[in-house]
Amino acid sequence: MAFSIRTDMAKELREINPDTSGVEENNEQRGEIELTRIRLVTDEAAEHYGKQKGNYITIEAPELANRPLELFEEVSDCIKEELTKLLGDINENSMILVVGLGNRDVTPDALGPRVIEKVYVTRHIKQLLPEALDSGVCAMCAIAPGVLGVTGIETLELIRGAVEHVKPDVVIAVDALASRRAARISTSVQLSDTGISPGSGVGNKRSGISFETLGCKVIAIGVPLVVYAATVVKDTLDLMADELGKHEDEQELKSLAEQVISAKMGEMIMTPKDIDIMVEDMSGIIADGINKALYKESYDSVMSLTT
Amino acid sequence: MAFSIRTDMAKELREINPDTSGVEENNEQRGEIELTRIRLVTDEAAEHYGKQKGNYITIEAPELANRPLELFEEVSDCIKEELTKLLGDINENSMILVVGLGNRDVTPDALGPRVIEKVYVTRHIKQLLPEALDSGVCAMCAIAPGVLGVTGIETLELIRGAVEHVKPDVVIAVDALASRRAARISTSVQLSDTGISPGSGVGNKRSGISFETLGCKVIAIGVPLVVYAATVVKDTLDLMADELGKHEDEQELKSLAEQVISAKMGEMIMTPKDIDIMVEDMSGIIADGINKALYKESYDSVMSLTT
Amino acid sequence: MAFSIRTDMAKELREINPDTSGVEENNEQRGEIELTRIRLVTDEAAEHYGKQKGNYITIEAPELANRPLELFEEVSDCIKEELTKLLGDINENSMILVVGLGNRDVTPDALGPRVIEKVYVTRHIKQLLPEALDSGVCAMCAIAPGVLGVTGIETLELIRGAVEHVKPDVVIAVDALASRRAARISTSVQLSDTGISPGSGVGNKRSGISFETLGCKVIAIGVPLVVYAATVVKDTLDLMADELGKHEDEQELKSLAEQVISAKMGEMIMTPKDIDIMVEDMSGIIADGINKALYKESYDSVMSLTT
Amino acid sequence: MAFSIRTDMAKELREINPDTSGVEENNEQRGEIELTRIRLVTDEAAEHYGKQKGNYITIEAPELANRPLELFEEVSDCIKEELTKLLGDINENSMILVVGLGNRDVTPDALGPRVIEKVYVTRHIKQLLPEALDSGVCAMCAIAPGVLGVTGIETLELIRGAVEHVKPDVVIAVDALASRRAARISTSVQLSDTGISPGSGVGNKRSGISFETLGCKVIAIGVPLVVYAATVVKDTLDLMADELGKHEDEQELKSLAEQVISAKMGEMIMTPKDIDIMVEDMSGIIADGINKALYKESYDSVMSLTT
Repeated sequence: MAFSIRTDMAKELREINPDTSGVEENNEQRGEIELTRIRLVTDEAAEHYGKQKGNYITIEAPELANRPLELFEEVSDCIKEELTKLLGDINENSMILVVGLGNRDVTPDALGPRVIEKVYVTRHIKQLLPEALDSGVCAMCAIAPGVLGVTGIETLELIRGAVEHVKPDVVIAVDALASRRAARISTSVQLSDTGISPGSGVGNKRSGISFETLGCKVIAIGVPLVVYAATVVKDTLDLMADELGKHEDEQELKSLAEQVISAKMGEMIMTPKDIDIMVEDMSGIIADGINKALYKESYDSVMSLTT
Repeated sequence: MAFSIRTDMAKELREINPDTSGVEENNEQRGEIELTRIRLVTDEAAEHYGKQKGNYITIEAPELANRPLELFEEVSDCIKEELTKLLGDINENSMILVVGLGNRDVTPDALGPRVIEKVYVTRHIKQLLPEALDSGVCAMCAIAPGVLGVTGIETLELIRGAVEHVKPDVVIAVDALASRRAARISTSVQLSDTGISPGSGVGNKRSGISFETLGCKVIAIGVPLVVYAATVVKDTLDLMADELGKHEDEQELKSLAEQVISAKMGEMIMTPKDIDIMVEDMSGIIADGINKALYKESYDSVMSLTT
Repeated sequence: MAFSIRTDMAKELREINPDTSGVEENNEQRGEIELTRIRLVTDEAAEHYGKQKGNYITIEAPELANRPLELFEEVSDCIKEELTKLLGDINENSMILVVGLGNRDVTPDALGPRVIEKVYVTRHIKQLLPEALDSGVCAMCAIAPGVLGVTGIETLELIRGAVEHVKPDVVIAVDALASRRAARISTSVQLSDTGISPGSGVGNKRSGISFETLGCKVIAIGVPLVVYAATVVKDTLDLMADELGKHEDEQELKSLAEQVISAKMGEMIMTPKDIDIMVEDMSGIIADGINKALYKESYDSVMSLTT
Repeated sequence: MAFSIRTDMAKELREINPDTSGVEENNEQRGEIELTRIRLVTDEAAEHYGKQKGNYITIEAPELANRPLELFEEVSDCIKEELTKLLGDINENSMILVVGLGNRDVTPDALGPRVIEKVYVTRHIKQLLPEALDSGVCAMCAIAPGVLGVTGIETLELIRGAVEHVKPDVVIAVDALASRRAARISTSVQLSDTGISPGSGVGNKRSGISFETLGCKVIAIGVPLVVYAATVVKDTLDLMADELGKHEDEQELKSLAEQVISAKMGEMIMTPKDIDIMVEDMSGIIADGINKALYKESYDSVMSLTT
């Protein structure tokens, strides 16, 4: 079980299973940014991929690894545009709840809580001092519910508690993802309108966060920040088996893998050494994309009110 | 308005108004620790002090400033004993919710969230793997709801959301307090069975967290971590006026004070330079007191399961 | 001794002693920024102020408290200009050592170490890959030597060790300062060409860091981040004494002060609650001013190489 | 070049090359702790292993992964004993300099700087207040010189600067290590009397830190905190080649490996998700071992003076 490819990226599931029917794919290059839009159309395709039916947009910018500030701006603009489409009509009566999933004290899992610190919350201003906001500005609030191991409470329960009080039109859930490819770590973003599947994500297993469980639209935004060690070994073995024409002997490969991957290593992650910096960078880019999508031309005035 | 003594300590309100009737006081010295038990008996006394009726226990250990490890242990034992009395009967069917109030990114307000990281949560173990726990162990869970300025949501609303899902028998709310006396900073602890009054606390104003608003017993634990600058100036002026026999001229004193305390300074706090270390120390002591009170002889086995 | 006004700001010493001779002062308003240039000309003036002879430039921008990004830029440009004048001729053969004084684990003392993390060091690139740098770019390196209580070594000794190996033309020493006025906290910057006096600064006492002790030009850049509690009490008492015509009775005032200021409080500082954010903001502004002053038109290319 | 096994552990080099002559090995089990003492006796053995001649002691305690506090104590006692032997005669005239290597802002490289924060420095007390220390207590001071990419200065240069001023009898250099085995991450410690080889360590390449470069005895203490991704792939391929009897075709294996390991992945590390916690734990254990070895029966009194 530990010996498998673990990925949260629809684009990678597509790479592994390119021939699954019921999947639509669309690609676009925008300067240094590559966009891949994958749509799981049928229940069969969704089940085959182990993900919900719906839209998955991957934004990839390999040059992010070199940290050029202009590209930060371009990627957050790109997130803004894709998020705007997923959000649909947002107006001054809209209420948005941003949920930062993950454990703030575990760096590769801290993306969500870090984004929460950087979005511009307006719900309380709207309640207490509405005249300070431009007309047309929606209300946004934000929580970082923590993880089961720290709170003792299912993340979904805490989000539900907040949803019942805040009654948002849309929940935007931000989370760290697992990828299959080291090159995608901290250089790509995935948006989807499907919510978050049960058991997915870098951190602890969790119940699905979705329209079904929350009663409102859920948009997920994620950044791949880890590759599981087991994935690396599995990829290495598969490649070698291909080359040596040994792929038929599935059982022997598994037994080999188990010699390399101890139980301990299966839970280890592969990550760049400067993951602290990458989480900081990417949380800023995501928060900026959200702020721009929600506040549009009022972005500057909201920023000066809230920071 | 800024020109006043701001304190959350019942003991200090008693020092300022020693003659208020309807207040009971009891003192006890235990080694280096001084205990003061104040009980606001009548509605009049409560209103006069601007606090709820009920019990306020102050644990003071001036030597904590020198950080002797044995005293850390003694103070957490003392918290355990007082908390045990306030909790009443706790058994394996009890559910406790610890709420860490305050802003984790503002050091003098971070006590609550830091305590949350250090208590031993058991609720999820009780649900998923109950046989791992000794019989008799209660369930505990813990949240740090954040502050209004960061989440856009009233703290009370978020706590209510959690309470509705968790249905605790007791909420233990941990918060940083304001004191009048520099010497009490990080060397004392206040426990009470009255909940937390509206507008109290170091951080943002908040609605009361109490039996009335949550529907279950609320125990508050706080540590004084700041003295407001305005309090220092007020104390200085009062003392000088006393000495110079000028106390009658209230208006002149106010006008003097306003020259020293600008609007800006009124919001400033006085704090030891090593506040980061003090918050770390005190959050450990408080968490340990809570862990001992809840888990008693199972403390060690719960610790080994949860850390 | 604890009962005195403690300030590291030449401008405040001037306010307290406006009639001292041997002092030149010059003022300039630039948009929202006020510049005050004070020159201690004579040995008598220097001794009277307890500071070295030389130039002290104060940059004040009260609006920084509201964190407008454009002003951040204007203040760092202003630092660039003043620093450029103090540096004199800098060229591609120049070697600059930036020293971040203070204790990184004590927030109000962490300015120096935080600046070090944000300056663009080039010395190693110049040695290992000189062709990557534009012609004309000087070499810069940076250290945070820590404080005596943590290292057990006098800060000056560690700086000397680095100076002997690096042989810089100029040392730029960055430090947190004490101010008399709450309104100046985190809204002003002081530059000087005099080095840092013995025993000055927020943190531990230290030997002077100056041409005399290091053998090269020393420029100091500081930001007031604390007001000592003793200063607030002293100011309050002085003001009251003035008003009440009691200033002659120095002894009585002192005895009053000693009742308010315990030994403990004398060491306490007054600081805004959001000091963590302020240190972050100001360290960015200072680092940016240094980067601009050293790299001028090559600022962008050096940034892309080093971040 | 990226395609190789990277390890700093003498025990692992021995595992890979068990037949190299000129190596002595000795094993001892102490409760849950396994000790392996390896001695590189000849120049040939040292060159073959790419390490200095001398003693390498590995302390392994797999149960550390479960964080039992008693074992923390046992491991630090074990470090104390081995370090005591390596230190030789230490008395009240001895001067020890502890150097924490690595980058404090990159979690898997932060071990050294974190140890520095936890050792009890006494050098300044010995100079300023010698009567406060028990007789027989040696002087210790501590620095974290940072890494080349942040300071622009070779680590060795900064250490030399400190050594020239402090004139220590022994330097204890603490660093994070690379291992070949996931199971050793944060569960083992390596001590040696050989200093640190050039180019070794997790962080940036650095010149050797040794008797040759510093002029005094150098003891190295390290904890494996990363496995390089390239090492995992190499191990997987080797194992598969063994099984499939394809080991002779070195060239084909290399070409396979290069398909799995991109340049990017070669620099990635494999690490547990909770590396932040592990670095915190291990830095405490190492610091405690050093404190016990240096201060022996005066450990408690030194602690109360310095924390």
